[in-house]
Amino acid sequence: MYNVISAKDIDALKKISGENSVFTGEEINHDYSHDELGGIEKMPDVLVRVHTTEEISQIMKLAYDRNIPVTVRGSGTGLVGAAVAVKGGILLETTGMNKIIELDRDNLTVTVQPGVLLMELAAFAEENDFLYPPDPGEKSATIGGNISTNAGGMRAVKYGVTRDYVRELTVVMPNGEIMKLGGKVAKNSSGYSLKDLVIGSEGTLAIITEAVLKLVPLPKVSISLLVPFPDMKSALEAVPHIIRSKVTPTAIEYMSRDTILFSESYLGKKFPDTKNEAYILLTFDGNTDEQVENDLNSVADLCLSIGALDAYIVDTEERKKSVWSARGAFLEAIKASTTEMDECDVVVPGNKIDEFIVFTHKLSEKYNIRIPSFGHAGDGNLHIYICRDDLDDRQWQEKLSLCFDEMYKKAEEIGGLVSGEHGIGYAKKEFLKKQYGDSHIALMQGIKKVFDPKNILNPEKVCF
Amino acid sequence: MYNVISAKDIDALKKISGENSVFTGEEINHDYSHDELGGIEKMPDVLVRVHTTEEISQIMKLAYDRNIPVTVRGSGTGLVGAAVAVKGGILLETTGMNKIIELDRDNLTVTVQPGVLLMELAAFAEENDFLYPPDPGEKSATIGGNISTNAGGMRAVKYGVTRDYVRELTVVMPNGEIMKLGGKVAKNSSGYSLKDLVIGSEGTLAIITEAVLKLVPLPKVSISLLVPFPDMKSALEAVPHIIRSKVTPTAIEYMSRDTILFSESYLGKKFPDTKNEAYILLTFDGNTDEQVENDLNSVADLCLSIGALDAYIVDTEERKKSVWSARGAFLEAIKASTTEMDECDVVVPGNKIDEFIVFTHKLSEKYNIRIPSFGHAGDGNLHIYICRDDLDDRQWQEKLSLCFDEMYKKAEEIGGLVSGEHGIGYAKKEFLKKQYGDSHIALMQGIKKVFDPKNILNPEKVCF
Repeated sequence: MYNVISAKDIDALKKISGENSVFTGEEINHDYSHDELGGIEKMPDVLVRVHTTEEISQIMKLAYDRNIPVTVRGSGTGLVGAAVAVKGGILLETTGMNKIIELDRDNLTVTVQPGVLLMELAAFAEENDFLYPPDPGEKSATIGGNISTNAGGMRAVKYGVTRDYVRELTVVMPNGEIMKLGGKVAKNSSGYSLKDLVIGSEGTLAIITEAVLKLVPLPKVSISLLVPFPDMKSALEAVPHIIRSKVTPTAIEYMSRDTILFSESYLGKKFPDTKNEAYILLTFDGNTDEQVENDLNSVADLCLSIGALDAYIVDTEERKKSVWSARGAFLEAIKASTTEMDECDVVVPGNKIDEFIVFTHKLSEKYNIRIPSFGHAGDGNLHIYICRDDLDDRQWQEKLSLCFDEMYKKAEEIGGLVSGEHGIGYAKKEFLKKQYGDSHIALMQGIKKVFDPKNILNPEKVCF
Repeated sequence: MYNVISAKDIDALKKISGENSVFTGEEINHDYSHDELGGIEKMPDVLVRVHTTEEISQIMKLAYDRNIPVTVRGSGTGLVGAAVAVKGGILLETTGMNKIIELDRDNLTVTVQPGVLLMELAAFAEENDFLYPPDPGEKSATIGGNISTNAGGMRAVKYGVTRDYVRELTVVMPNGEIMKLGGKVAKNSSGYSLKDLVIGSEGTLAIITEAVLKLVPLPKVSISLLVPFPDMKSALEAVPHIIRSKVTPTAIEYMSRDTILFSESYLGKKFPDTKNEAYILLTFDGNTDEQVENDLNSVADLCLSIGALDAYIVDTEERKKSVWSARGAFLEAIKASTTEMDECDVVVPGNKIDEFIVFTHKLSEKYNIRIPSFGHAGDGNLHIYICRDDLDDRQWQEKLSLCFDEMYKKAEEIGGLVSGEHGIGYAKKEFLKKQYGDSHIALMQGIKKVFDPKNILNPEKVCF
């Protein structure tokens, strides 16, 4: 169906992007065959390190004419194979497009190229006394990747998700045409929101080459609170009480003793407290000490009244670092604790989290398989890892498949969805299809065909 | 192209919706031929007052089989003809679907039918100590209409627009299929966001029959500040200074003396101050008096330092009412001041508002036509009215068309878009096409065809 890349195509790509930006065969590092999780593998035929919108437009014109598949990759931190060139062809790597183009203090926006890393943008905003609120755990992800998955992160409880901060996108269409979607405006009712369609489309509809993002003034005060509970059930049951009390933390994360211990051993750094079974970690921000302390104290009192064993204020720089660097390392730490793993990133209504986690604990017993998890208790987005440990290949595939089936079914039953922020990519397609059904998927496929009639942009992903 | 409705169709509709909910010919009030502005007129062949999702599904199956156009209408407060049945056929009126179905205190959501009025939802939220943040000026609009235009309103500066508060939509597709889009979840990366495509699509892609909306805890304190300036230019120039100072008001509205006087005479109520040329009206909210007063005082001082003539605190119930009811009546008051009018609802980057308003003043002089305006200075969304007054038909059409052409061109030049919140409907299609160009419009048309292959749902709107 697709054409195989020819020597002539390679020459054309070198003419467009320069000799030093085009790689083939042995020149391509094996890392480019997979993402962070590694379950989906395929080497691209050619890797192009791209630098400008115009260049990407020319590459897409070539690919469109020649019917060659193109996949876009940021820093490869995905977990569902979305940035793997499963049909081979051209892999465009955007990490060289890492310029912060403009800070607009009048309109509270920042304009960036897609290869800027989340941690770079976060630091830049803070240096300028702004906050870029989306805060996914993986700080070395690119902003292009964050937009492509509509990443949410820790601060979604108060601030929402990436979608809420994207004002305008410059994109290259599959046929090479350059288009602006949205604008540097706070309101928009000017036709169907193609911008919102591209956000979360995992590189299947158009290539994001520039983004105007909204910032907020940096809150002057931010303090965290670590609250130990005797068990996970009571920790998670506290969350709806906190939400109902109408204090709005920026984040409510949950974590188990096990996960914290993995993280301690992975980082070689001590966590402030590991003697209890389960913890919730909250952050509060605001512009006065008084306001933030009021919020924090009222939640601490509430937690203590419903079963918390203590409440540690995390206000020194050292303690903040120890707690949040542990939280940031959970994924890596669990990965290091096992031979192989796969993940489930469901999102459920916030008050169903405890029910879902108890369910995964039962699954773990039922199938005799380790299922550690952590996640965003405040917004119902769970990160659940099924660990292979010493299972043989047959057992692993069998148990993994049974666990996934049961988990996604359970999520659907309680009003949840397949993915909160990691996306569908290649790995979760079947679960999306099962939940949404044929008509819903057919709409998505129809939209994909409107954007990409030749199906050359990141084929085989999301809904195909 | 479409079938004419037959007596048999009417019988079928009566069987679905009941004898008393189906109206034809003389039974249909003339109001159903137009919206608030009245420029676009066409009587539907049949009016059906609908009450349930299931009923709408059956009507759409009939319409789909019989190839009959269907247009959905809420309370008819639109300004661009989106709810006018320009091809005749069936008009579905949703104001009978006015139930608030559920308040979920654990997940901070409210589930409503589409015919609930904005003022009903606002009051319900407040009675329960919550805030539904979107606050469009037209409080008697339905929530279905607000979602269909992605209405923004006054509080967008701090809280964003309707889109940001829609968690889940139940919709009926043009072929009658019932679908759920999104979920009662705070994050979502589960395929293309069809929910975000339907939001702002002005009833052209699917019929919204239920919505789960996000609420926030009601801020305990809310105070407004009315700031007079010697002229509009200096009033609007103050806005970027306020934004840059990093205090975040919930609203920054601008208004001219003329408009306030219209409103005074329309309402028969006094405004606190009318001796100055131009005003900005700000609101601040928060949970402590101290915090809100700090914000308010710092902005008052800032304004006084850059040319404001005074700063009135609007904190008594009486003063609040007089100021905000005047603001709420601007559209009606301007309408009452002239024989006919048309409107321009552009949105521009926040720091370009003064440039745009100065431009409209020059246009007014150039074409010797009255162009009052008011709007959301904090988010760049302007409501500009071109008044016919005593012009004859030929002069009016000519001047209107010239003014519109110049205004939309200017908006595009400074990075603005055709509509901030009123939508495109029937009246603004040509301007959308001019700004977006063929490829962009073709994508929208392609999407429309995917949702509505027979083009029976609200035809001739937005992109066709």
